[in-house]
Parts: sequence; structure tokens; C-alpha cells
Amino acid sequence: MNDTSHPALIGALTTTAPKTYNFSPGPTSLPQSVEERIAQSFQTGKLTSLALSHRSPEFVKILSTTKAKIRDVMSVPDNYEILFTHGGGHGQFAAVPLNLCTSSDDVATYVINGTWSERGRDEAKRYCTVNTIDAKGENGQYTTFPALDEANIDSRSKFIYLCSNETVNGIELYRLPNLPESLRHIPLVVDASSDFSTKPIDWEGANVGILFACASKNIGHPGATVTIVRKDLMGQASPLCPGVFHYKTNAQSDNLWNTPATFNIEVIGWVMDWLIEQGGVEACEQRSKAKAQCLYDIIDSVPEVYQTPVEPKSLRSRMNVPFSVMNGDQKKTDSFLIEAWEAGIVGLRTLTPFGVGEYLRASLYNGVSLAQANVLASFMKDFAARQK
Amino acid sequence: MNDTSHPALIGALTTTAPKTYNFSPGPTSLPQSVEERIAQSFQTGKLTSLALSHRSPEFVKILSTTKAKIRDVMSVPDNYEILFTHGGGHGQFAAVPLNLCTSSDDVATYVINGTWSERGRDEAKRYCTVNTIDAKGENGQYTTFPALDEANIDSRSKFIYLCSNETVNGIELYRLPNLPESLRHIPLVVDASSDFSTKPIDWEGANVGILFACASKNIGHPGATVTIVRKDLMGQASPLCPGVFHYKTNAQSDNLWNTPATFNIEVIGWVMDWLIEQGGVEACEQRSKAKAQCLYDIIDSVPEVYQTPVEPKSLRSRMNVPFSVMNGDQKKTDSFLIEAWEAGIVGLRTLTPFGVGEYLRASLYNGVSLAQANVLASFMKDFAARQK
Repeated sequence: MNDTSHPALIGALTTTAPKTYNFSPGPTSLPQSVEERIAQSFQTGKLTSLALSHRSPEFVKILSTTKAKIRDVMSVPDNYEILFTHGGGHGQFAAVPLNLCTSSDDVATYVINGTWSERGRDEAKRYCTVNTIDAKGENGQYTTFPALDEANIDSRSKFIYLCSNETVNGIELYRLPNLPESLRHIPLVVDASSDFSTKPIDWEGANVGILFACASKNIGHPGATVTIVRKDLMGQASPLCPGVFHYKTNAQSDNLWNTPATFNIEVIGWVMDWLIEQGGVEACEQRSKAKAQCLYDIIDSVPEVYQTPVEPKSLRSRMNVPFSVMNGDQKKTDSFLIEAWEAGIVGLRTLTPFGVGEYLRASLYNGVSLAQANVLASFMKDFAARQK
Repeated sequence: MNDTSHPALIGALTTTAPKTYNFSPGPTSLPQSVEERIAQSFQTGKLTSLALSHRSPEFVKILSTTKAKIRDVMSVPDNYEILFTHGGGHGQFAAVPLNLCTSSDDVATYVINGTWSERGRDEAKRYCTVNTIDAKGENGQYTTFPALDEANIDSRSKFIYLCSNETVNGIELYRLPNLPESLRHIPLVVDASSDFSTKPIDWEGANVGILFACASKNIGHPGATVTIVRKDLMGQASPLCPGVFHYKTNAQSDNLWNTPATFNIEVIGWVMDWLIEQGGVEACEQRSKAKAQCLYDIIDSVPEVYQTPVEPKSLRSRMNVPFSVMNGDQKKTDSFLIEAWEAGIVGLRTLTPFGVGEYLRASLYNGVSLAQANVLASFMKDFAARQK
């Protein structure tokens, strides 16, 4: 049980500091100019998308331009459909097997290297026969990513599932794996909820079948999810697939089979505009690298003060930097959190049900600028100096 | 095919008039003071709920106070759980049978008297054995509500399903039906998406088991749904029920099994605050009656100009007033829409896939004030006078 005697220790995000630096693991802050655009949209006196019928020409235009911006930013090929789906990543945990497996005898391969791939697997077990490739270490922790090859992948698999950034464990695939030629008939399904738009996707090279991302990390706020589906994979859904999860049904009705989350979708489009202004996904990746590097550098420079679990370094997440203070010493960790909070630095400890143990996490989504990451790095450097 | 030569004829909501009167069937405008509160929330310079982690103490408080306000406004008894669910009403079309039927042999009774009860039935057929009580008239239209009794309800039914306001057809139940004593072991499931919060619910008297309402008509904007479940009905879900739809799973984790639509939920709370300020649900019902009455009065007073289909009058929807202009004459209808649009009156024609035929609809949700309804009534009166 954590100490609850100070707001910082129960994950409060509102401080008395003049400025807030939000490192929440999501939902979290959006890029400042996007937040300003949202505020501006409510000041014009015109109808905002909150009040637009989803079938009005105004919203239909928002929908189509938002799709076009995502396609542009992420270079989504024409043979992929872009859907706005309901129920977040967890909705897709069920939707993926319900759309790709017609019976519970169908086999799917799940790569398990963290909390979110575990959760995806648990939902899939309701709908298909799940083979797993598990990367849990002897210490019971996930700190790496397993090899994927013919030895551990059933060639009958309807899909191979992985999570490209495990937020809790801090493991990221900077590039999707290239599977051996003999397995290229199997589409890859990617939970990109926490890294979508922060690096390029090799749609064809990595044989991506489905890629989904809830909005609330890098591209918006909760209530909408971007799900990108290769068109040839539509139309093989289980008869048990609910309509709201059914890719073909929703594609055929152009995302209007039922009412989509209108405003939430419009905001995704504004984040795409920001990404384009900022140089696109390649520039975003450079910023992500720089933001993460400044934190890992300070962590690695004072191993007696900060520790981070992921090896090799090439798997260290740029989105979520897990670290312990003085090997998890409770008193030192609490001091760190309280002093950070007093400096306006928040979101490093979230009360999750996932048992992350002693690790704090600094999340560096699109809403965090390099300048903000440097504020945290400076704070960490100063805190470390005070421990000598 | 409708004429598309004028914005009014394709359902445009933005006009050149100085003020907009939005009669959209949803999503639609919120009460003016709620829209102002939303705008204000983005001007304070503080973190808004768009940027709050769902597990932060700040958002957990928003979640619990929003639930408490709904319980207060709608007098929800303690033996009912209030959930914020994903996927809108269509999500619940699947979730209801998935939570109440453990096998496809389980029987459920669906009362069909419009577009939305049809849609609910179609989803349910995937998961249970559906008995229907159909109210379609000889003309192929739904204009009434059928009797419910032992003669047409299978006493083995796991639930009896109805939609308390059919938006497309304009049929509303001002009070939920009282079933005969011999059927009171069967819980009632109510799709109240388009009338929730506009009249009291007799939870125990009507034996309500589940009542759900998507936010985008009366209580917010799309992306969140309020689903109220009697606690004894939790825990009998099909093993095929996706986690995001599973009532017990979500109740046990206090709506945080996955990330809920944080901002969308906060706005629902603000609408509840407005309802309380305005005198609660009883006062809301009086306003709803008055708003609808001023339109039905003008329609009934000039039957040669306006026609409305629903009989008896005691089933005429207060939420959605369907009417034709000169028995659906295309040219006159187009003139009506264009003149209305020029006066800032919008949302009367929506391009739906439901084949509403010649009917226009004026929707009178909480966002429409009595003064606004009177603006439309005056316009309709003047238009009628010009036809003489």
C-alpha cells in the first residue's frame, strides 16, 4: 500500500506550481497547439462538432478529411481501410479474433511480452485457439521480446498478434519484425495504442493485417480508436461478431453504421494537422528519440540512484520510461514524487491494477515536448546530485 | 433521390442566419449553459478532463460525482449499478443478450415498433432465440405500440426488450408499461437512448432490469453511454461476452476496466447539473410536453399543410415530431426546408439509411429550449399561412 498522505503519492495531476508538466501514461495532455485549437473551437460561437449530427455534410467532411490525414501521415496504402472504432484497445482485443476467426478451433499466435499483450490474449481465448510465445523472464518480469520463427509459430495461425509498445513494461519495437518467408501468409496484428504516429509503419514489408490505436496516448483523448484493416481480411468474421466490432459492416457504411464519437474523431484530425506541421512521422520519431534519450542518459549516468529494467537497450521504450529511485526505496521514491509534484512534474506514478512494483514511469507521448522532457531530466539530475 | 442543389436539402447545419436553431435528431446541441461551461473549461489554463489519466484522483472524482448526479436526477435505486459503456446504443444491442443469455437457446421477447427496436432485435438474433411482438401496420409503417400480455410473451423469456422512444417513427412511451403479475419475473430492458432524463422512470414498478441511453441525444455528445443494470442480473453473462460489454467486470472495476471516455463522461455530469438547476426530471417533463405541444398544435390546426403519422395521440413522441409538408410534395417540402434554413432552423431533414420517406422531423431534446421550439412553431404557422 502506497502512502496517501500527499497528493503526489496518489497520482494527483493538479499542483500548486505555476506550470504543469504532464507525464501521465494516458489519457494525457495533447500538444499545446492542439489544446489551444480545441479551446478556440468553443469560442467562435459556431456549432462545434459536439453538436453536429453524424450524418450532416459538415461532420461527414470532418470524417473523410480526418481519414485522409491519417492516411497521409502514416502512409497507409490504398488497400487498407481506416475505421474509427468503439471500446478502445480492449474493444479490439475482442474484435480482432471475432473478425478473423470463424470458429473457436481457428488458431492464432500471440506474442506475450507485457501487460497489454497478456490482456489481448485473455480476450482472444473466448473466440479462438490461442498459441502463445511468452517472453517472461525467470524473475517473473517482461524485459525483452522473443524471437519469432517457424519453430514457435503454427503455420495455420489466422494471425500473429503483438503489442508494439508495452506501456507498463517499457518495451518498444522501433520497427515491426520481418517474419520468415514461410510465414508471410499470416497477417500481423499490431496493438499500436501507445506508439501510433511516432514512427513509420512498413505496412507491406511487415505484412500488417490489422493495426489499432486507441486515441488517448498520442493522437487524441479517450472515446475513439483508429483501426486500420487490410481490405482482403474483411468478410471472414464470426457470426458472433457484434455489429459495432464488425469491420466490413462499418467499412461499408463509411464509419456511420452507428454514431461515431464525433468530437473525439475531429480532435484526432487536429493532432494529424499538428504532426504534418511538425514535419510528419519521421520528424516525430526524431523528437521521440531525443525525448527518451535525455531521460535514459540521466538514468544510466547514476545507476546508484536510478534503475531501468529493459535489456537490450534497443528495446527500451521511447514512449514510457520506467525507472526506480534508489532501487525502489519507498521513502526516497516518495520524496522524489513530492519534490517533482512541487515543481509541476506529474503523472509519474499512476495507481494501476497491474502491479508495476517499484517502477515509476515517465510517458513521452506527442503531448510532451522535448523542452518538457528536459525539465524532467534536469529535475532528475538535480535530485540525484542531492543524494550524494 | 433528394435535391442537393441547396445546403438545406442535404442536411447542412451551418447557415448564414445570425442564430442557429438546431433540431437535429442527434448528435445535437446541448443546453446553452452546458455549452458555455464546456467552453469555459478550456479557458482556465488548468488541465481539463481531456488530459486527465482515468486513474488520477481528479478523474476518479469526476466519475463518482457524475454517477451520483445521475442517481439523484433519475432516482436510481441502490440495487442498480450505473455504468459508462462503450459503443453507443448499438453496443448495448449486443451487450444485453450477451449479459443475460448464457446460450443461444435462451429466449428473449422483443417488442418491435420502429427502427431502433428492429436494430436491437437484429443484433440479439446472434446470441439468443428471439420472440417478437410486432406492431407494423398494414401500410408497412410503425405508428403504434402493441399490447403486452401473457398471450404474446413467452414466460420463459430472459427479458422483455423495448425502445421507449422511436426517433425515426416518432412513437414514445410516456410511462413504461406495467406487465401482468404473472410476467413480473421477467426483467424489462429499455433502450432509452433518446428520452432518458426527460421523464421519471418507475424502476421497480416497471420491473426495469436494464436501461441504457447513448449520450448524444439528451445528456451529452457521442462516445459515452449510460447503462443502468439491476445488480442481481450481473454474473449470468455468456462466456462469449467481450470484456468491454461485460457488466459485472466493469462494475467490479468501477468503470475502470479499460479507459472510459473521460471528457464525454464529464459533460454528462454537467448536463445533470443543468437538469438539477432547472428543477429536475419532473420539470424537464413539463418542458418536453410544452415544446412538443406547440408543434403538434400547429400541425393539427392545418391538416391540409402538415401531417403527422402517429395514432393515438398518447403515443406521439415529445422528443421527435415527424411531419410531412403538403403530404410530402417534394417542391413544397424543399421550399419549407430552404426557408427554414434561411431563418437558422436546421436539422429537420437528416439523410438517414432508414427510408423515412416524406417525413421531416423536429427533435426536441434537452438542448432545445421552449423558446426555440416556439421559433419553429411560428415559422411553421407563417409558412402554412403563405400556402393559402
